[in-house]
Amino acid sequence: MPGGRDDAAADHVSGGRRPGKSGTREQILAAARTRFAESGFDGVSVRAIAADAAVDPALVHHYFGTKRNLFAAALALPVDPETVLAQVRAVPVDEIARAVLRAVVGLWDSPQGAAVIGAFRTVLGGGDPQLIRSFILEVALKEVRARVDTPPGSAEVRVSLAASHMIGILVARRILEIEPLASMPLDELVERCAPQIQHYLTGPIEV
Amino acid sequence: MPGGRDDAAADHVSGGRRPGKSGTREQILAAARTRFAESGFDGVSVRAIAADAAVDPALVHHYFGTKRNLFAAALALPVDPETVLAQVRAVPVDEIARAVLRAVVGLWDSPQGAAVIGAFRTVLGGGDPQLIRSFILEVALKEVRARVDTPPGSAEVRVSLAASHMIGILVARRILEIEPLASMPLDELVERCAPQIQHYLTGPIEV
Repeated sequence: MPGGRDDAAADHVSGGRRPGKSGTREQILAAARTRFAESGFDGVSVRAIAADAAVDPALVHHYFGTKRNLFAAALALPVDPETVLAQVRAVPVDEIARAVLRAVVGLWDSPQGAAVIGAFRTVLGGGDPQLIRSFILEVALKEVRARVDTPPGSAEVRVSLAASHMIGILVARRILEIEPLASMPLDELVERCAPQIQHYLTGPIEV
Repeated sequence: MPGGRDDAAADHVSGGRRPGKSGTREQILAAARTRFAESGFDGVSVRAIAADAAVDPALVHHYFGTKRNLFAAALALPVDPETVLAQVRAVPVDEIARAVLRAVVGLWDSPQGAAVIGAFRTVLGGGDPQLIRSFILEVALKEVRARVDTPPGSAEVRVSLAASHMIGILVARRILEIEPLASMPLDELVERCAPQIQHYLTGPIEV
């Protein structure tokens, strides 16, 4: 079925179907990495990245779908962030910590986790932290921030404290492998840590 | 005063006074890094390291003082861990989190902090985590662990959870630079985070 080759969606899913243009995807990714690292996720348009890569913006969408997916690709994330975000969005505000922990640690523990950890280690080891920082604050925790801003103006502090604990759990569990945290069953980890993280998100706080 | 050259303590402080033997110190350090990485701090004797480096154990003490100092040198720590430990030892058990946070974050914020962060990043970036893990558990938190084992058997869980939050604060503040945590005054950081860490150390817990 030669006609099927023109289907952009199918092309996107199967990845790199056009033999003569295999460099285009890499050009777009390189431009995206530079731009996102300079300006963060919110500060960059798909149009600007397309211009840097000297391609039509439609081609960026063709290869990567949404801007969020492009960002995930720039970070070498093996999963669509939306998968995690949907789980967090589905719960009431006083269960956010539990949902975030379960989703994020669950991801790190999953077969795809190794690639995420690899990308994270690269940044921790000396790469520009802007990409990961932007991912955490502008993609992963953006909706959480909007939901926990009580009293008004407290959300930034709340989210940065909660993020610090999340990051620490991930580093201790999957990079430094500190026991018994490293091999603690996910359910137990959630029971032990969610209350502390939830306290940062919705507990009493001075601004 | 040529006689002064034989004073081991002075030699240790001034560092590398013997022109013909400058390789000895590095040989000892290399042996120490390998041994500590393989077996952790507690699992290695100064005698074994000296044997690996083919030097007399007295020479190890001559160059590095205590085994703890040798470990610090292997980790490229610019400070004697005892400086931090003494501050933590001085407080009652229900103020340990506050003391640890103040001492450790204070160290990272100090002029010597950059070297500590550099050593930490090297490990996070892909080095063997055994050295840092051993440092955290067997040197930095050993005395804390002994003091928080209530009910008996809970100390390992308590310490690994508290360590994970500490690690996260350090990564978020000094590597990813997540605001407002990154530029939060130390006093404010201690006020906000000490209760959560203290909860892990001495709060109610199921084993």
